[in-house]
Amino acid sequence: MLRVELICTGDEVLTGQIVDTNAAWLAQYLFEQGLLMQRKTLVGDRFDDLIAVFKERAPAADVIVVNGGLGPTTDDLSREAMAAVLNEPLVMHEAWKKRIESFFHERGVQVPESNYKQATMPQSAILIDNDCGTACGFRVLVENTWFFFTPGVPHEFKAMIQQQFMPFLQAETGLQTRHELCRLLVFGFGESLIQDQLADLMLGEQIQIGYRAYTPFIQVKVMGEAGSSEFKAAITKVKDRLGGMIVGENFNYLAEVIHALLPQKQQTLAIAESCTGGLVSSQLVEFPGSSAYLIGSVVAYSNFAKTHLLGIDEQVIQQEGAVSLEVATQMASQVKHRHQSDFGIAITGIAGPDGGTIEKPIGTVVIALATSTHVYVQQVLIRHRSRMLVRQWATAIAYDMLRRELTNTAPIFDYGLIQREADIAVPLPQSV
Amino acid sequence: MLRVELICTGDEVLTGQIVDTNAAWLAQYLFEQGLLMQRKTLVGDRFDDLIAVFKERAPAADVIVVNGGLGPTTDDLSREAMAAVLNEPLVMHEAWKKRIESFFHERGVQVPESNYKQATMPQSAILIDNDCGTACGFRVLVENTWFFFTPGVPHEFKAMIQQQFMPFLQAETGLQTRHELCRLLVFGFGESLIQDQLADLMLGEQIQIGYRAYTPFIQVKVMGEAGSSEFKAAITKVKDRLGGMIVGENFNYLAEVIHALLPQKQQTLAIAESCTGGLVSSQLVEFPGSSAYLIGSVVAYSNFAKTHLLGIDEQVIQQEGAVSLEVATQMASQVKHRHQSDFGIAITGIAGPDGGTIEKPIGTVVIALATSTHVYVQQVLIRHRSRMLVRQWATAIAYDMLRRELTNTAPIFDYGLIQREADIAVPLPQSV
Repeated sequence: MLRVELICTGDEVLTGQIVDTNAAWLAQYLFEQGLLMQRKTLVGDRFDDLIAVFKERAPAADVIVVNGGLGPTTDDLSREAMAAVLNEPLVMHEAWKKRIESFFHERGVQVPESNYKQATMPQSAILIDNDCGTACGFRVLVENTWFFFTPGVPHEFKAMIQQQFMPFLQAETGLQTRHELCRLLVFGFGESLIQDQLADLMLGEQIQIGYRAYTPFIQVKVMGEAGSSEFKAAITKVKDRLGGMIVGENFNYLAEVIHALLPQKQQTLAIAESCTGGLVSSQLVEFPGSSAYLIGSVVAYSNFAKTHLLGIDEQVIQQEGAVSLEVATQMASQVKHRHQSDFGIAITGIAGPDGGTIEKPIGTVVIALATSTHVYVQQVLIRHRSRMLVRQWATAIAYDMLRRELTNTAPIFDYGLIQREADIAVPLPQSV
Repeated sequence: MLRVELICTGDEVLTGQIVDTNAAWLAQYLFEQGLLMQRKTLVGDRFDDLIAVFKERAPAADVIVVNGGLGPTTDDLSREAMAAVLNEPLVMHEAWKKRIESFFHERGVQVPESNYKQATMPQSAILIDNDCGTACGFRVLVENTWFFFTPGVPHEFKAMIQQQFMPFLQAETGLQTRHELCRLLVFGFGESLIQDQLADLMLGEQIQIGYRAYTPFIQVKVMGEAGSSEFKAAITKVKDRLGGMIVGENFNYLAEVIHALLPQKQQTLAIAESCTGGLVSSQLVEFPGSSAYLIGSVVAYSNFAKTHLLGIDEQVIQQEGAVSLEVATQMASQVKHRHQSDFGIAITGIAGPDGGTIEKPIGTVVIALATSTHVYVQQVLIRHRSRMLVRQWATAIAYDMLRRELTNTAPIFDYGLIQREADIAVPLPQSV
């Protein structure tokens, strides 16, 4: 088995100013390629510490990815430390120097003197292209171990790993990537319940099941040999077992599912948000092309906005409260009507940490979906969760109601982790 | 200087199933106590790997925190590995065994057999109390290095570090915590420019300057002895030098600054967003209490929504384009008027990756602020940045315009990294 290690550098990571997401991403990426990261070492920006860790880890690994320390500032020392390990001078890479100059010139800016440092590397190094930034990568061989230096900026790092590191590894080691991964998105249920559900399935020797929890989702990963009948059978078995718990296949988020489904069905959407405050629309707008189906959204955060911008009946707000089945029904149908869209989504709730009552405690959220014929509304209690999590859960439930409607299943569903307190389905009000 | 290291264990972390937030938290916590974590090593759950890393790091450090591997399952091997390193048997700690039994009995559950393992530790170990869970911690001395074993569950880990580890460290080493940190939030300028600005400042021996970049912000951290005149003088010098680049003191985000300023000034806000799609409002709604000043927000994503929900003149959209000074002016004044708020913010732009023209390329964004008397509008070009980054920059510029107005400075400012293409200031339209 190929011994792969990671060395992360940088005081920002070591002092906890930054959570080291590159490392988690790389570990997971390698895992999905059938490789296991054996160790990760995190060191600060001190020259001697860098030299020590390079010397120490070289004999223990076949390939070492070094992340960070390629920036322009004085505490970026990865290049210098590796040059010292190799006992080589740092040399200027002329082609990369030109690249830096044009990068800045395109932006109408003079090259800061310190950025020229980013074109230097140890004499025996081989340049690795970086088409997103000014820090090139490079690789060097220390005895029998390849060190692969990568920039710390996450999108530059990921691009370099995918576009340069993996192909290099495959060419260098004859490693064949024949792993395939199917990602099943589960929403509304806990990880241990899902594990229990799958525990007794006989899936074949080459099949691996992995889990990744990122609130409020669980991703169930089925890995196997690409195209094999064993792999296909395993996916079928897992899907059969989890049934309606699965809300997407090879999607990471429900917003992504909606973003795929709405244009496919040529339907449009308008959104009325209260406690989510723009989260529902902003998750969709993250995706290019969302203007094809998202007509608009109203964040009716105050009662004033609810009555004046959406035309909600003030008396109903007084009588039933802003967080009520009736208000959500009006919000969903009004926002649909005012935007002339095919669907309307509405969310109103108490995200906390204040504002709860005995009757409607913190975590009470009402979510409504207006279709061409009906408004489906449910009141749920999202208990013991932070303000941010209440908003994320509510957003996901709204998307899931729409997803179920778009895939011809009932919009209201029993989520194991969420307590539903009431639900109604009424004909779309004609008066709006 | 005390040499502190961290060893994290667990395949979940190493395969990227879990992002290692304990490590970031500990690093930052230690840093704020004036201690530097020198290295962090992450290993899997393999017995031999654990023994190797314990033996290897012991001579390099004075104190090593070990995190994880104290659970009840078969892949929790930290105890066993340390016993092997010490060449000692694992012994049952009777008092902790009783604690486990009462923990389960209180919950009306029989103790699962596997949990008894959690009361064992190497013979020479000293128990460390854990008042939140069933895994006790323990410490052992390997030659001259203390190993401090802690549970992986974040809230148990944090409690143990704060309540047990720091007091132990202080007692053991006579360490005194006297560090203080001032965080200055800078927006609109690059990290290297800021470093250059501060390079020649004479700040005193005990002062440290740190930088943390998280797009689109840079945080400049000034650290020094709490309450010392040197520390106060250093903060003044840095603030004088950076001047208008600083947008907040001891805030992490501009949204947080707005969230503090608006209630303080007893002013209210309404927002009209196009390309940001709800990001401006949703960043504010993250903070509890935002309902005190945020009346509402309209995500006028389509031209239909712009004309019907905000009353923008359709002819102006046709003539000038949806991304124009005129449309932004109308959006800001209309959204203010319709919500009867003190301020109105509007953003309309081309976030990409499609939709750019020669005249208005991708990254063109128009941002407007309506006050009680004027509308301030600027058109900027946020070049060579992803859709998400264009939206984040635009959001931050909008907040900063409002912040400048609220602090009695001109709302339109020259950001070094952003090219401004046009700006106007017009009296607030009376007709709205």
